[in-house]
Amino acid sequence: MNTPAYTALCTTFTRWYHLNHLGALAGWDQAAMMPPKGNAARGAALAELQVVMHQLLGDAALPGLLQAASAEPLDALQQANLREMRRDWTLSTLLPERLVQAQSLAASHCEHAWRTQRQNNDWPGFLGNFREVVKTAREEAHILSQAQGISPFDALMDKYEPGSRSADIDALFDDVKTWLPDLVQQVLLKQASERVQTPVGPFAIERQRALGVELMGLLGFDFDAGRLDVSAHPFCGGVPEDVRITTRYTEGDFVRSMMGIVHETGHARYEQNLPVDTRHLPVGRARSMGIHESQSLSFEMQLGRSAAFLQHIAPRISQHLGHQPALEADNLARLYTRVQPGLIRIDADELTYPAHVILRYEIERDLINGLIEPEDIPALWDRKMAQYLGIDTRGNFKDGCLQDIHWPSGSFGYFPSYTLGAMYAAQFFASIRRAHPDLDTRIAAGDLSPVFDWLQHNIWRQASRWSTNELVQNATGEKLNPAYFRAHLEQRYL
Amino acid sequence: MNTPAYTALCTTFTRWYHLNHLGALAGWDQAAMMPPKGNAARGAALAELQVVMHQLLGDAALPGLLQAASAEPLDALQQANLREMRRDWTLSTLLPERLVQAQSLAASHCEHAWRTQRQNNDWPGFLGNFREVVKTAREEAHILSQAQGISPFDALMDKYEPGSRSADIDALFDDVKTWLPDLVQQVLLKQASERVQTPVGPFAIERQRALGVELMGLLGFDFDAGRLDVSAHPFCGGVPEDVRITTRYTEGDFVRSMMGIVHETGHARYEQNLPVDTRHLPVGRARSMGIHESQSLSFEMQLGRSAAFLQHIAPRISQHLGHQPALEADNLARLYTRVQPGLIRIDADELTYPAHVILRYEIERDLINGLIEPEDIPALWDRKMAQYLGIDTRGNFKDGCLQDIHWPSGSFGYFPSYTLGAMYAAQFFASIRRAHPDLDTRIAAGDLSPVFDWLQHNIWRQASRWSTNELVQNATGEKLNPAYFRAHLEQRYL
Repeated sequence: MNTPAYTALCTTFTRWYHLNHLGALAGWDQAAMMPPKGNAARGAALAELQVVMHQLLGDAALPGLLQAASAEPLDALQQANLREMRRDWTLSTLLPERLVQAQSLAASHCEHAWRTQRQNNDWPGFLGNFREVVKTAREEAHILSQAQGISPFDALMDKYEPGSRSADIDALFDDVKTWLPDLVQQVLLKQASERVQTPVGPFAIERQRALGVELMGLLGFDFDAGRLDVSAHPFCGGVPEDVRITTRYTEGDFVRSMMGIVHETGHARYEQNLPVDTRHLPVGRARSMGIHESQSLSFEMQLGRSAAFLQHIAPRISQHLGHQPALEADNLARLYTRVQPGLIRIDADELTYPAHVILRYEIERDLINGLIEPEDIPALWDRKMAQYLGIDTRGNFKDGCLQDIHWPSGSFGYFPSYTLGAMYAAQFFASIRRAHPDLDTRIAAGDLSPVFDWLQHNIWRQASRWSTNELVQNATGEKLNPAYFRAHLEQRYL
Repeated sequence: MNTPAYTALCTTFTRWYHLNHLGALAGWDQAAMMPPKGNAARGAALAELQVVMHQLLGDAALPGLLQAASAEPLDALQQANLREMRRDWTLSTLLPERLVQAQSLAASHCEHAWRTQRQNNDWPGFLGNFREVVKTAREEAHILSQAQGISPFDALMDKYEPGSRSADIDALFDDVKTWLPDLVQQVLLKQASERVQTPVGPFAIERQRALGVELMGLLGFDFDAGRLDVSAHPFCGGVPEDVRITTRYTEGDFVRSMMGIVHETGHARYEQNLPVDTRHLPVGRARSMGIHESQSLSFEMQLGRSAAFLQHIAPRISQHLGHQPALEADNLARLYTRVQPGLIRIDADELTYPAHVILRYEIERDLINGLIEPEDIPALWDRKMAQYLGIDTRGNFKDGCLQDIHWPSGSFGYFPSYTLGAMYAAQFFASIRRAHPDLDTRIAAGDLSPVFDWLQHNIWRQASRWSTNELVQNATGEKLNPAYFRAHLEQRYL
């Protein structure tokens, strides 16, 4: 094929991929390995890398190449790649250097101070820095919005969820709001009479780690292409060829750490199974943050917390940690589905989690679109927490609107991805279940291949070849349908 | 001060320093953390970084800035920095891209095959690839030699030891050759009647590690600015703000691993104590490979293997590993000064090590200068091993000229640095001893401050401000004088 412009573009984006490798590694190291005095030099090194990567996509030849490539005889995969390259180029070059620097400065200033302000419940102090973060985010949103003809908030959300629009999210979330609060109350009533035993520690860190490694093996993690380490905030990092996941351990409790490993392993398998021949190109990367979250939640929520899976792994848990009645499968299943409305999103159970997300989405959407101002946040937070979860948050900024790192660090539009991921995961598992009516029996017997085969075929190897809507349609025969999520919750919790 | 050109140069070299941070980290990770399937992507990422860093120094504005800066009102430190910047720029830009790529290709091809060929004692197979490595190295040497008006070999050695010339090295090494073989024989005779007990393992890795960490603390390693990890080949890597040293453990023996940690801690303290305000500039980095080695050998040979130091740490060793008679100070001192001529350089004792270096230096010097050809190496190796150490190496390529990674990977001119380092270390300690006649008493009491204060003042904080000769002259009142090395060996071993 005679595709010189397309080929030249691929060379540039492959270079970008190689440089990104170094940034991903340095980010993982910063969280998992780096001693404290390395921080300033690491920050400067990563900032310099950002400049180099930005310059690479700012190359004056790129607009012409993008134009020329669209007239070249490209096959469907190449066309999809061209679409993704154009998207990257647009996002990278639309924003003036001045704004990118102002955003980075405002965010790092605000986030740094937030770490102390949160502890001190200091909303007024935070507000002073946060205004500047919102100001620069609105400026970015305005520029991206003008270029794409979508609302300012949608322009930011589109960075994480390409093609996603708040009109659709509103519809999805408004529906959830009609049934979720009632469902939570019903489940609380039902669970009030349930007896759940709490496993009693200490559980030696080394044994927890060995259990985690065994579960990662069961879940198909390739240890020749990745590692498990420790960090304060668990995450999945690294690169597809070398995926680094982390967890954190406490001796008193293994429950969270173990399921955290299952969660990150879901992210990891997506990355490890991106198509080998295109993973260095934009078309070969993960589709979106929501689809990424759908993989971690497929592993954690659909599979990991299911009675069948817990039945299979209960003996292994006892083997590593020593047996006690609380480690029997039935009790584990009750533990991992216990519902308790609470203040903190990251501690929330599967059922109340969407309420946390919807509340944040509604606030950040109106904030970026200019319908509310930063100082309006606490009152809205209080009202929505009372309405969605029946919780009083007045005066408690620390465990309220100051709890997440997203806003202080200037990330607006990310929150919906969490609940979109939960919805996709439910829809995917409904598909798997249709194809395998004996799914639970097989899972309980330790045969997870129906899940892995389906995800491999429908999600992992598809990478970014299709739009998110196409991907979901191809995989499940319909577009995103939140009924599966509701059905899953009702089936599991009622 | 009005120094716009100088300031612009500093900006470019600071950017270079930041990018180099990412390469140093990725190199450490590759050796200490990376799973096997990450290797190809890591290699591509590091190669891309090299291109970017090379382009940075290839900026067309640099020659003009270097020219203009030399006319600006610079203070002495700035002038030294300008000298180092000019050196970096010259080394980076003299070689055509084509040659750099050919060298990299030949070396990676040869080194990769060497790993198997060495095991198979396959000199003829190795020779086939090695000719190309020598050819490209000679081409590099020729270009650098023409530009600097020095011999081809000196041009390569100068990359590691700025200002060092083989006329000087010849004089130093010829002198060593007049007394070393006899000294070795005398010491062998003396030690023949010595009784040395070998510590009996197993020594649990975790306890060896704890011992190593304690010694690093005693030796002043800053754990807030560095780490200790494990790799197949121990090294000191990372960046001054975050120094990563490695070791390797075997349960059966702690002796090598422990002293290896002491050695790398010497490298690490040099890096950790480079001047904070200039370490991002060429003037603020370590002076040379020989001076770097002088720091690791000051720690390992001068301090670490001394009777006084071993007396101080013997109780700590027993505390970590459990007591046995072999761990008493007197026996440890005999263990750590045991002389045994052998085939392998990296296993050599302090006394026979220089013979290994001199042999390699003489061969690589004549090879690069075109006086001998690659096929002449084995015969020369055999003759010199017999002459310097009385060892027969005929037919044993594996433990002979195929043992080191330096030549297969295209590094010629590095070997002298090892013995220069040993000589500098002896001279430095003679100075310290003159200033502190009670040095051994203080070391035996665990007070290492005379050593650290002297190195900090005379070496670490001087970084690359002076030429190596000036540095040594300022520090000790004279230029490199190998009499101190001989005196040290005679004092310790006779």
